[in-house]
Amino acid sequence: MSDFFKDIPKLAYEGPDSPNPFAYRHYDPDEVVAGKRMEDHLRFAVAWWHSFAWEGGDPFGGQTFERPWYPQDDMGRAKMKADLAFEMFDILGVPFFCWHDADLRPDQGNFADNLSTLDEMSDHILGLMESRKTRCLWGTANMFSHRRWMSGASTNPDPEVFAFAAATVKSCMDASHRMGAENYVLWGGREGYETLLNTDLKLEQDHMGRFLNMVVDYKHKIGFKGAILVEPKPQEPSKHQYDYDAATCIGFLRKYGLEKEVKLNLEQGHAILAGHSFEHELAVAGAEGMLGSIDMNRNDYQSGWDTDQFPNNVPEVALAYYEVLKAGGFSTGGTNFDSKVRRQSLDAEDLVLGHAGAMDVCARGFKAALAMHEDGGLEAARATRYAGWDTPAARAMLDSDLASISAAVLRDATNPAPVSGRQERLENWVNRFV
Amino acid sequence: MSDFFKDIPKLAYEGPDSPNPFAYRHYDPDEVVAGKRMEDHLRFAVAWWHSFAWEGGDPFGGQTFERPWYPQDDMGRAKMKADLAFEMFDILGVPFFCWHDADLRPDQGNFADNLSTLDEMSDHILGLMESRKTRCLWGTANMFSHRRWMSGASTNPDPEVFAFAAATVKSCMDASHRMGAENYVLWGGREGYETLLNTDLKLEQDHMGRFLNMVVDYKHKIGFKGAILVEPKPQEPSKHQYDYDAATCIGFLRKYGLEKEVKLNLEQGHAILAGHSFEHELAVAGAEGMLGSIDMNRNDYQSGWDTDQFPNNVPEVALAYYEVLKAGGFSTGGTNFDSKVRRQSLDAEDLVLGHAGAMDVCARGFKAALAMHEDGGLEAARATRYAGWDTPAARAMLDSDLASISAAVLRDATNPAPVSGRQERLENWVNRFV
Amino acid sequence: MSDFFKDIPKLAYEGPDSPNPFAYRHYDPDEVVAGKRMEDHLRFAVAWWHSFAWEGGDPFGGQTFERPWYPQDDMGRAKMKADLAFEMFDILGVPFFCWHDADLRPDQGNFADNLSTLDEMSDHILGLMESRKTRCLWGTANMFSHRRWMSGASTNPDPEVFAFAAATVKSCMDASHRMGAENYVLWGGREGYETLLNTDLKLEQDHMGRFLNMVVDYKHKIGFKGAILVEPKPQEPSKHQYDYDAATCIGFLRKYGLEKEVKLNLEQGHAILAGHSFEHELAVAGAEGMLGSIDMNRNDYQSGWDTDQFPNNVPEVALAYYEVLKAGGFSTGGTNFDSKVRRQSLDAEDLVLGHAGAMDVCARGFKAALAMHEDGGLEAARATRYAGWDTPAARAMLDSDLASISAAVLRDATNPAPVSGRQERLENWVNRFV
Amino acid sequence: MSDFFKDIPKLAYEGPDSPNPFAYRHYDPDEVVAGKRMEDHLRFAVAWWHSFAWEGGDPFGGQTFERPWYPQDDMGRAKMKADLAFEMFDILGVPFFCWHDADLRPDQGNFADNLSTLDEMSDHILGLMESRKTRCLWGTANMFSHRRWMSGASTNPDPEVFAFAAATVKSCMDASHRMGAENYVLWGGREGYETLLNTDLKLEQDHMGRFLNMVVDYKHKIGFKGAILVEPKPQEPSKHQYDYDAATCIGFLRKYGLEKEVKLNLEQGHAILAGHSFEHELAVAGAEGMLGSIDMNRNDYQSGWDTDQFPNNVPEVALAYYEVLKAGGFSTGGTNFDSKVRRQSLDAEDLVLGHAGAMDVCARGFKAALAMHEDGGLEAARATRYAGWDTPAARAMLDSDLASISAAVLRDATNPAPVSGRQERLENWVNRFV
Repeated sequence: MSDFFKDIPKLAYEGPDSPNPFAYRHYDPDEVVAGKRMEDHLRFAVAWWHSFAWEGGDPFGGQTFERPWYPQDDMGRAKMKADLAFEMFDILGVPFFCWHDADLRPDQGNFADNLSTLDEMSDHILGLMESRKTRCLWGTANMFSHRRWMSGASTNPDPEVFAFAAATVKSCMDASHRMGAENYVLWGGREGYETLLNTDLKLEQDHMGRFLNMVVDYKHKIGFKGAILVEPKPQEPSKHQYDYDAATCIGFLRKYGLEKEVKLNLEQGHAILAGHSFEHELAVAGAEGMLGSIDMNRNDYQSGWDTDQFPNNVPEVALAYYEVLKAGGFSTGGTNFDSKVRRQSLDAEDLVLGHAGAMDVCARGFKAALAMHEDGGLEAARATRYAGWDTPAARAMLDSDLASISAAVLRDATNPAPVSGRQERLENWVNRFV
Repeated sequence: MSDFFKDIPKLAYEGPDSPNPFAYRHYDPDEVVAGKRMEDHLRFAVAWWHSFAWEGGDPFGGQTFERPWYPQDDMGRAKMKADLAFEMFDILGVPFFCWHDADLRPDQGNFADNLSTLDEMSDHILGLMESRKTRCLWGTANMFSHRRWMSGASTNPDPEVFAFAAATVKSCMDASHRMGAENYVLWGGREGYETLLNTDLKLEQDHMGRFLNMVVDYKHKIGFKGAILVEPKPQEPSKHQYDYDAATCIGFLRKYGLEKEVKLNLEQGHAILAGHSFEHELAVAGAEGMLGSIDMNRNDYQSGWDTDQFPNNVPEVALAYYEVLKAGGFSTGGTNFDSKVRRQSLDAEDLVLGHAGAMDVCARGFKAALAMHEDGGLEAARATRYAGWDTPAARAMLDSDLASISAAVLRDATNPAPVSGRQERLENWVNRFV
Repeated sequence: MSDFFKDIPKLAYEGPDSPNPFAYRHYDPDEVVAGKRMEDHLRFAVAWWHSFAWEGGDPFGGQTFERPWYPQDDMGRAKMKADLAFEMFDILGVPFFCWHDADLRPDQGNFADNLSTLDEMSDHILGLMESRKTRCLWGTANMFSHRRWMSGASTNPDPEVFAFAAATVKSCMDASHRMGAENYVLWGGREGYETLLNTDLKLEQDHMGRFLNMVVDYKHKIGFKGAILVEPKPQEPSKHQYDYDAATCIGFLRKYGLEKEVKLNLEQGHAILAGHSFEHELAVAGAEGMLGSIDMNRNDYQSGWDTDQFPNNVPEVALAYYEVLKAGGFSTGGTNFDSKVRRQSLDAEDLVLGHAGAMDVCARGFKAALAMHEDGGLEAARATRYAGWDTPAARAMLDSDLASISAAVLRDATNPAPVSGRQERLENWVNRFV
Repeated sequence: MSDFFKDIPKLAYEGPDSPNPFAYRHYDPDEVVAGKRMEDHLRFAVAWWHSFAWEGGDPFGGQTFERPWYPQDDMGRAKMKADLAFEMFDILGVPFFCWHDADLRPDQGNFADNLSTLDEMSDHILGLMESRKTRCLWGTANMFSHRRWMSGASTNPDPEVFAFAAATVKSCMDASHRMGAENYVLWGGREGYETLLNTDLKLEQDHMGRFLNMVVDYKHKIGFKGAILVEPKPQEPSKHQYDYDAATCIGFLRKYGLEKEVKLNLEQGHAILAGHSFEHELAVAGAEGMLGSIDMNRNDYQSGWDTDQFPNNVPEVALAYYEVLKAGGFSTGGTNFDSKVRRQSLDAEDLVLGHAGAMDVCARGFKAALAMHEDGGLEAARATRYAGWDTPAARAMLDSDLASISAAVLRDATNPAPVSGRQERLENWVNRFV
């Protein structure tokens, strides 16, 4: 064990009454529910970015953390960071991790060196994976931090940036493939605009659609079996991002012929920033069969920027997992924490406890969701509410036209009587489980 | 002239320095710019709903206005309301009006009577139109106020409500057709949900898609030449509305095969409530060739509900019309004011001045937009910014694949140099015109 | 039992596992915790307004409910409404109710009749109270619904409205006093402005301050022992309300010399609309000793208007009650539900279940808050964090000045070392209790 | 002239029709209006922070700018930065600048060196000022960027941080005094909390109140004649900041006995983030005689974080200056641009044009405000609206009590008639000037 984590024990399940902060009270990876181990239901992942690369800065202040792998401009320290990351994966017992290329090693300022250092780090991580159980949930390319990306990646006015982006994504897909990643994610933080005044919105979206088609083609070419996922967010860093929310992404994918090839990676915080509940975004994706994976990090409801906090509200988490279960649960996807400890949370134990508390919250929420799902009360109420549509007459009406329906309404003096939506009863029902 | 408007003169253009509150300072309908009369560019419309049917109530208080046509539960007074509406159209000199069925006459509580009273009012209005110049921009069905619609119209769990909605829309399309309306609009205020817990989102959206297809079929059947328009709004009255914003509507239309048949009626206030600028929504629709018509009423930026105020900020209005001009200007569409005077603005003159001030603001904004458009400075800057994409090499790259691009990046040591986006220079340029 | 509630049983506590929707699972009024019955800790109140006077309307639609006491323009039906209200109080077993004058009887359009009908209803309610256990938590004057209040009550530009407001508040204070109310509340829904352009902000605030002083004087004159409370809300119906949030109200009270005389009635939904968490508003009031009473109704986080929903998130409710407990618990105040069932919740049972579910959520939340309070873990962590301030040197520094502190910093080469804020550890700790 | 600004001419006034981007079209410093030069009315200031110290980073990406004075860790380059700043002041012809200590020179990590390097830079700047016309509007201490401030400055749980803050503010007040600054500003970016769970809100506010009293005492001790200003902001970087908005600050100042000693520095962007219009915040401060100075940088209405953009909407700016004029215009205060060019605006000319466009927008807005002020139409309408309060009877009523007013209402059958608020007429009136 390194000095960094030296006083921190490996976390074990101790049951709901344990007062030990370094224990799981609700998450027992081996507990079998609905025929599967909890670990295999929830498929937790730690994000390299927030947990190891972010230094505690915000727009008004710089680094607050002090980590042994700082400053992050050196390949030796990049490997130390990976070693310590795997130590934390072991402490937590998490089955997955996620990464951007720029988290694994510093951007070298040119593509050739970016490529070779990414290869070097992939080798190092594959070495670490040999003796560990933690696998790669997804990889992705950071195409928003370096100044070359300031005006977008695939949507950049400069074709050279498009080219650099294409080469970068190829390198990250290759690395993901080597690591056995189960998905490849694209988040277009700067695929949008800062001002409409200098933007050709149509051309940029066409380029983004073309780029995404290239990504899908390359996936098939190399035989990558994982899912390709895009991640909606309304804005920040861009003033407007093209992948605004689930419905916008789905419309985009359909326009560019990608609705069978690409799914969504949905984040609670991004849902909130777009003016939606998380369960809404999940339901929208689920209704289209496009729910791929989730980032279970909350946004502060009163802060208008991305706060990326660990989840801590069980009832909300339960409603989210209920939609995941309705969509059939995770296949390639999982529960990633794209969360960061607060910048005042300086210590290694804060890093561990942030994840541990979140995993417990998710486990409680998931078990509540599963109980609701198994009880079936909500679906029974829904079936009753829409029962009128199960009749042949209703189905025939859907196949007819305005004129015939109008004639029937006149003939039958149709005058529908409102029926209670029973929202409070259903909310009370949910509170029996969460 | 009625008593109601008795002291109010017919408004004329008096030039920018006129101190007369009852005059236009910027809107001269007969002024010819860019080869067309201002009236034919702007195509102003008064909305029956806010200007004649709304009684000044809000969620915390009831009627404040006192109008000669109150209470609005009588067909005689409905005709008086129409007569006075046309008086105001004459005072303002507006070329168009817009209506919901429920604005023209009270909902009768059953379809047969709704139909016959709508016919009766259509006859009355056609009579008024004979001697006047004001025409119908669009008609629409109010399927959100009566309690039968509380759980939606085409998306209602009860098939009888779907039927009632179909019959209602047919009746309103027939009336619009008779009045020579240039468009037919659908706004789905309750096509959405109050809680996901009791909602079958997929079934509801499928029904809404089917319904809209029936509308399009009926348009063709009766030979209605106007455009069918849907109007996005994110929420209110519903917690979530399926027609959330322009991008969501466009995705919906494409899913249900309607992208060639249906366009958008975009409202400034709804854009704001969805987290967008109005010019964003217009640009999104324009990029898809789906910009139909606009509701030029602003929302208070600090109030989270629909405030429906008359526009009063010329620079904002100018940016909106710039996007309209980029999209080719209005064909069947126009500038509707879906605006209400504040509930403390009790007098007939407030009603007139609300519209008059808005028309002047729009005229100033439109002329500024036209000047920007004719100067071409913005488009020249945009062309320069994206010039790299005009080369054969860039176009060839778009037709290639990740692997070849990556090879080229390595071969050429491509390392793009960031170029200024020049936002402040462009903003200053805009301020030369507004 | 009336027909209206005829199939609805009186609710009893049946324990957490009861599947009966018409039972309490967590609220046992007679359970003694921390030396007091739950009923006496929580002091639940039903609000006449939302539960009996609101007819289901919203800005886009009218009445959806059908109640035997409609239409509400008749004194006979006003008494029937009161009788049925007390039936529901019995069904729920709530110890308190709250009212506006306009909920009890229709506004008569003039003060003399308003006064006599209020007296008539007060007599009727006192009669009902004789044989029941439910008492009056607070009364208040509705000075926002009738059109006379459209430009404010005490802040109206018209002195006659100020006079009408003064007479109205006197009548409501008298009625509250007769009913034995434990508080008198003022909510200034239209004490603010719609536009700054026509507003004399300073004069209006001075009048409001003077008015509130008259209220306090009158309280002492009649020997009313209850608390005078003002209720913050940022906006809606007004564009801006002077009682924006807790901090604004406290500043206002201090300016007008009322900080010892008036406390706050805080609402979760209003906190959210002002950009604060509920616990923030409670902590601000608690820190000043001005926490009077609460309205425990949530606002939808994604809707920008007052949604007034029953609470249903236990962890949030627990954090709110924790602040109430820190402030010493309720004395004259209580837990009012200023909540309405959704307008699609048509049935009497929805009305009952809305309250019942909320009471259970509050009971769970309160018990969790109490457990946290009794454990003391949070306060111990806080004491540790601020321990440095307990030294004589720190206290001496506070009594010194910039120059001496600067000299000491230079002399001692003071260079403080950041210490972790441990936010995640504390959030995890909270999740052990909620 | 340095290489950095080498192709950029000194800006001159060329009149509204000039197509020259490097000219003022509306700002002529020597134009005399209302008896004063425009320069002396507007008192423009450039902020060192955004214009010279910010490197183009945001939460998702790092430095985009390349300036000759980077990296900013060296005193030689700090002096070069100052030299170039004064070059830009000359190019723009601005009369004032503003600074934080951390903008002038790098934080040295300990107080002694912070002090000596601040002195060294003060000497350097005083040298530059000898031959230039640009003076210091205000100085301030950056107590939010260095990690020592992560948990607050005067509100820090650690008394050593309070001490470091006291020493730092003393050093900045001394430097401001030496430079002849007309104000000293305190912005408490981290004077607030990240989570209530670990916060003693009352103790922190008491310390902040004590600290501010020390600042005022020190001002008098050293004979600093400028104003002490605090700057409200609701949140960011903190989750909640104690100086939330104007009303909150005023309440705070009154509580700690500082209402005669401290005024407000109000920022448009912070007003927006707090849910207010800028004119609201100005009116609130003006009504209390506490309007000190302004930061005229706008926030994007749709982005929930501080966007700090140059103002570009003339009508909005005009309404703001109207409130400044109502409050008597600036005395020690001025128009600071706490604005940054967008991070894609890489070039020196962007920096210059951002300021130049903003100065033109302010000049147009100010002249419109002055014209409105001189016309007096708004104040006349306001006087009419409140005329009822000018009678002896109304004033006597204010001095009476609820019981006598109630008796009078009954006696006189007072029944006020609503009068139109005429909002649209007033909005139209404003549009004659802007």
